[in-house]
Amino acid sequence: MADEVVLLDFWPSPFGMRLRIALAEKGVEYEYKDEDVRNKSPLLLQMNPVHKKIPVLIHNGKPVCESLIALQYIDEVWNDKAPLLPSDCYLRAQARFWADYVDKKIYEFGRKLWTTKGEEQDAAKKEFLDCMGVLEGELGDKPFFGGETIGFMDVALIPFYSWFLLYEKFGNFSVEALHPKFIAWVKRCMEKESVSKSLPEQEKVYDFVMLMRKKLGME
Amino acid sequence: MADEVVLLDFWPSPFGMRLRIALAEKGVEYEYKDEDVRNKSPLLLQMNPVHKKIPVLIHNGKPVCESLIALQYIDEVWNDKAPLLPSDCYLRAQARFWADYVDKKIYEFGRKLWTTKGEEQDAAKKEFLDCMGVLEGELGDKPFFGGETIGFMDVALIPFYSWFLLYEKFGNFSVEALHPKFIAWVKRCMEKESVSKSLPEQEKVYDFVMLMRKKLGME
Repeated sequence: MADEVVLLDFWPSPFGMRLRIALAEKGVEYEYKDEDVRNKSPLLLQMNPVHKKIPVLIHNGKPVCESLIALQYIDEVWNDKAPLLPSDCYLRAQARFWADYVDKKIYEFGRKLWTTKGEEQDAAKKEFLDCMGVLEGELGDKPFFGGETIGFMDVALIPFYSWFLLYEKFGNFSVEALHPKFIAWVKRCMEKESVSKSLPEQEKVYDFVMLMRKKLGME
Repeated sequence: MADEVVLLDFWPSPFGMRLRIALAEKGVEYEYKDEDVRNKSPLLLQMNPVHKKIPVLIHNGKPVCESLIALQYIDEVWNDKAPLLPSDCYLRAQARFWADYVDKKIYEFGRKLWTTKGEEQDAAKKEFLDCMGVLEGELGDKPFFGGETIGFMDVALIPFYSWFLLYEKFGNFSVEALHPKFIAWVKRCMEKESVSKSLPEQEKVYDFVMLMRKKLGME
């Protein structure tokens, strides 16, 4: 029996993009279902009753929730090609550490850039750009965080690039001007079809967020 | 060469307790260093320059930070006994999901119980007790979350029991009265020396927090 794989997702979600990239890297065919996050489907509520959030990977009827956990699941189940985590225990721990850093820092400060104002926004801008510096340091002279090929940390981080136009406009900065080595890494990732086809255009994400802000009375 | 293992920890930290339990389960000898978290040691700042937080596991001079990541590292390196994560990919994902739930819910709402007041505290109390119900449901009739033996999720969760006296006094509730199956699980865990010797007395944690509240002007 062939694997039945369904992805409950929402197109601007960087967490969903992680799974799109990983499934593409592994060559797994799947059914993509875009959720209306304001009117969640019965399937989503049934498959993720605890958090009620996308993305959810449904493999032969069984759900895997939380993107970094689903990413590891994909890597363990389809282990015949494109390994995401290295085989060495210490390097695995390092990859997990940096992916966790993305969730705790990049996502968090990025969100604050367009949801806060004044001093809070200034602080988020400083923190966000500091993180870019930390990440450049961690990347060093390697082509990818995973080494010679795209790995767990690369897949965890690159989706946020589709939100960069938004971050840059609200923060009034240019990541390319400040952190050219980071953008050189972005370009290497985007050369891969698994990545470029999984990320929406920055303009589309920007327009989506601006419309959402209007609806929420944030403008 | 024998493994050189050092644990940078702070005795009331439930995150540190996770590593103490795992190292005890695996029978790994290590040097325990209790940090003064208000006056962090040069070693801690050197070993965890990103987050500057305990616990840090230092294995042959190399640091592993973030407790759930270090827990997986311990499980992968000392894989000859007491496996924490199951071998089945789906059950591994489930164990990781519930451990993550502890960090996102139990830790968070537990903290709010003694750091907030009024409506915010009432909401935290409701959420905390709801979580206890969810966890009881997940445990079901199994002796441990990991099945017949203590596993990844059990080790992630049980340290918070040492904070329960504090939670119960501030929330004005009794977990045993409301969730006896949860407490039955606690007792099964505490029968294991790896657990009971790794957790401080609830009274000691309570007194520590009350003293800290006084110092911070929260009383």
